[in-house]
Amino acid sequence: MMNETATTQLALKRVAIDTYHENVAYLNRRCEAYRAEGFQALSKVEIQLDGKRILAVLNVVDDDSIVTPCEVGLSEQCFAQFGVDEGSEVRLSHAVPPSSMHFVRQKMKGQRLDQTQITAIVRDIADNRYSKPEIAAFLVSAADAGLDRDEILSLTRAMVDSGHSLDWEEEMVVDKHCIGGIPGNRTTMVVVPIVAAHGLLFPKTSSRAITSPAGTADTMEVFATVDLDPQQLHAIVHAQRGCLAWGGKAKLAPVDDILISVERPLEIDSPGQMIASILSKKIACGATHLLIDIPIGKSAKVSSSREAMQLRKLFEYVGDQLGLDLQVVITDGSQPIGRGIGPVLEARDVLQVLSNAPEAPRDLREKSLQLAGLILELDPDIRGGCGYDVARDILDSGRALAKFNAIIDAQGRQPATLQPGHLTQEIFAPCDGVVTEIDNFCLAKIARLAGAPMDKGAGVDVLKKVGDSVVSGDVLYRIHAEFQADFSFATHWAGQHSGYVISAEKRHADFVF
Amino acid sequence: MMNETATTQLALKRVAIDTYHENVAYLNRRCEAYRAEGFQALSKVEIQLDGKRILAVLNVVDDDSIVTPCEVGLSEQCFAQFGVDEGSEVRLSHAVPPSSMHFVRQKMKGQRLDQTQITAIVRDIADNRYSKPEIAAFLVSAADAGLDRDEILSLTRAMVDSGHSLDWEEEMVVDKHCIGGIPGNRTTMVVVPIVAAHGLLFPKTSSRAITSPAGTADTMEVFATVDLDPQQLHAIVHAQRGCLAWGGKAKLAPVDDILISVERPLEIDSPGQMIASILSKKIACGATHLLIDIPIGKSAKVSSSREAMQLRKLFEYVGDQLGLDLQVVITDGSQPIGRGIGPVLEARDVLQVLSNAPEAPRDLREKSLQLAGLILELDPDIRGGCGYDVARDILDSGRALAKFNAIIDAQGRQPATLQPGHLTQEIFAPCDGVVTEIDNFCLAKIARLAGAPMDKGAGVDVLKKVGDSVVSGDVLYRIHAEFQADFSFATHWAGQHSGYVISAEKRHADFVF
Repeated sequence: MMNETATTQLALKRVAIDTYHENVAYLNRRCEAYRAEGFQALSKVEIQLDGKRILAVLNVVDDDSIVTPCEVGLSEQCFAQFGVDEGSEVRLSHAVPPSSMHFVRQKMKGQRLDQTQITAIVRDIADNRYSKPEIAAFLVSAADAGLDRDEILSLTRAMVDSGHSLDWEEEMVVDKHCIGGIPGNRTTMVVVPIVAAHGLLFPKTSSRAITSPAGTADTMEVFATVDLDPQQLHAIVHAQRGCLAWGGKAKLAPVDDILISVERPLEIDSPGQMIASILSKKIACGATHLLIDIPIGKSAKVSSSREAMQLRKLFEYVGDQLGLDLQVVITDGSQPIGRGIGPVLEARDVLQVLSNAPEAPRDLREKSLQLAGLILELDPDIRGGCGYDVARDILDSGRALAKFNAIIDAQGRQPATLQPGHLTQEIFAPCDGVVTEIDNFCLAKIARLAGAPMDKGAGVDVLKKVGDSVVSGDVLYRIHAEFQADFSFATHWAGQHSGYVISAEKRHADFVF
Repeated sequence: MMNETATTQLALKRVAIDTYHENVAYLNRRCEAYRAEGFQALSKVEIQLDGKRILAVLNVVDDDSIVTPCEVGLSEQCFAQFGVDEGSEVRLSHAVPPSSMHFVRQKMKGQRLDQTQITAIVRDIADNRYSKPEIAAFLVSAADAGLDRDEILSLTRAMVDSGHSLDWEEEMVVDKHCIGGIPGNRTTMVVVPIVAAHGLLFPKTSSRAITSPAGTADTMEVFATVDLDPQQLHAIVHAQRGCLAWGGKAKLAPVDDILISVERPLEIDSPGQMIASILSKKIACGATHLLIDIPIGKSAKVSSSREAMQLRKLFEYVGDQLGLDLQVVITDGSQPIGRGIGPVLEARDVLQVLSNAPEAPRDLREKSLQLAGLILELDPDIRGGCGYDVARDILDSGRALAKFNAIIDAQGRQPATLQPGHLTQEIFAPCDGVVTEIDNFCLAKIARLAGAPMDKGAGVDVLKKVGDSVVSGDVLYRIHAEFQADFSFATHWAGQHSGYVISAEKRHADFVF
């Protein structure tokens, strides 16, 4: 009796299950190979075909309509990696963990990794050779033992190399990025039209919200199509000198997307991983000049100047090594920017600023002008110190609004409705005093509970900001929702945590409610 | 338009896919809820039915025969947790991570966890509320930031509390455990018959090999059925005072099995986790007196006395706190024990020792007698220092062999064949000299490549041990296999890495080949 127990021949089947970036193989429990090989559910197997080897997590199946005992099923993305027809004969064997896991274990023990080792890890992740627990082990070890600046540099470089990059065929391509955490902070939608109107190339791609009530892409979508393929993007950017698109379609820095898919649910907070993620994406997007915005505030991602300074130095070091012209600006993150939180409400704020409406939120206008000014000064033709004034002139003259409209038309204008959700609830000041704190996390949470960003009109409209005097009964903010269940969740939460601190000056005491 | 976006009603379907301890939910891509909720593949969802809430990882399906757009499919174990019929209406919503993940993140930052926090983590894992990446994050943080002795104690206690425990209704229940890593080390199969023949209660349950060429359960299976349910086990143990069974059927310390399923593929090496795993299983098995064997050797799990001593102190501390009468013995782990490596070859060695055959391997006999002697001295009736002699008398008199046969008959005698694999290859000494080193890892690897433990007759027969003089051409060891492919793998590997160091005395140089 001759039998190849080391590998087993099976017919390939495509199983129409989407397991995202995790390869999954499905084997019938009555399959010879399953018993013979001593495979266990969720152990990893290697599937071979014509010298190509793919690793997959094993799921055992008791239903012949999914896979028969003579087949091995592969989840959709996993099947696509072979690029062959169903029924092709493949060989199945126990998988050894990817060899770069050795370096992950070194990192777990606190050892430094060099460029070769980090590149090996990133390449194995890009090739879908890591299971989710293996990716988690890498992320935890990198968060925990930490990455020093050269490791961050290595990781950034490896992540850039793992995917495609855009080339705009110009010497100077500007970009900006905020590390996030401040609700309503939609400066990008004001800065891009100003800078593009001046003539610098600003091909801005943004993310959709994952944990926040809105990303720039979600808010821009109120006005225009943001889901553009690379060809469309190129045409628009070369005609308009800028765009405001969603970055998801270009499949740049694919490893970053995989890491984020594991990192987010774990809520791992790792500065090194964040810097590598941001810079690799920006480089892949073709940026040559980059402005990084780090807001500081009690309820912001960064809560101390010391922490902000450490981040700044790391950004500068990695950026310099990679030939980016990078500047970091540290801004006020003590409260939401503008009034609206949620796509439609933010879109309204942006349009008021661009239209120079008298009711436009001053803080959004000022911050946008400052950031635009810093970017404009990257232009050799602009005299040092004059960026702000040039930006203000472009905004006040209406050229920024005209550029914004041109970009909207180029991307595809949506039948815009700036109507906030019809279910509303106001939250009132419980006493006289002065607003001394607004909790970013809390207001973001209320806006999300209300349905943002899925329901464009849902969110929070902030009517009193830090420093404003209030009398008992004044409206602090208004919740908008489109659906009853969301509305109940949001108002219930706000009833328990308003997110405001009101200082009653006379009593010299804070009123936290 | 009213719409509950927060939760969605769907019909439950059992999907016959075994995803082990990871809950998986299957949702059709055309399902309303999928779009409305913005679920992403592999994000976590919460499924609710009559107040019961289960968390599952989401897989998106494009095949209506697996789930229709009106259904949510659950993997087998996940479905079983609800204990209701297919078609029952359930509600689906975004899941928040289990609240104890907060403590995992604290551990990642190097903070100590207390009993309450560790219990919360273990309970959430037992309830299948952790995804594999979340379990990986816990394991890495515990391996990395490390667990201090009180955290190990808390973890052990929480793991014991998470499952059932056996109660043998006797005051003294003895057990032994070796931390592993030494091929051929089958002392348990000699020690149990000696101690049980003396009359101490020794209900030994062992594991099957996971990464080694044989576990005690694999080797015992050559003689007898090892797969016994708790009732059978009870009857056998009370009649025979001992057993040699597989521990997998009793489902003791279920959290340990879950942790191991994630830990093994990651090859995480965490002393705290190992101690909690061993002691929680032993306590769950009802042991009151426990002997722990820590072999030290260059190619053993523990390579220095310092490391062994640290482990000993941790075992003692946790054991004492939990009321175990625990003793640690540090043994020689410099080379394999006995001659055979692999189930049949080891079974032959054990039988030779129990039969007092002249060719019986002396090291296996001696180590077994020493361990048995230490356990016997736990008996108040045995005078301090006399355990070894009593053990030897029981072995030499044939009473141990008789007890072994009685246990085999009670468990169910297998039609025993002690025939090693028919494909053989001998590995020869390349020069005259003395064997100075044998690499445990290397010989274990060769035995596994040859097919052990799946092919019972496969393995390695070690003919020269450390200290033996050899002349060029002497057989060092013999590889046995049952199948050609395995045989080729094993002989190919052995041709490149023999695992032996021969010191040519005259040349005063080692010959590593």
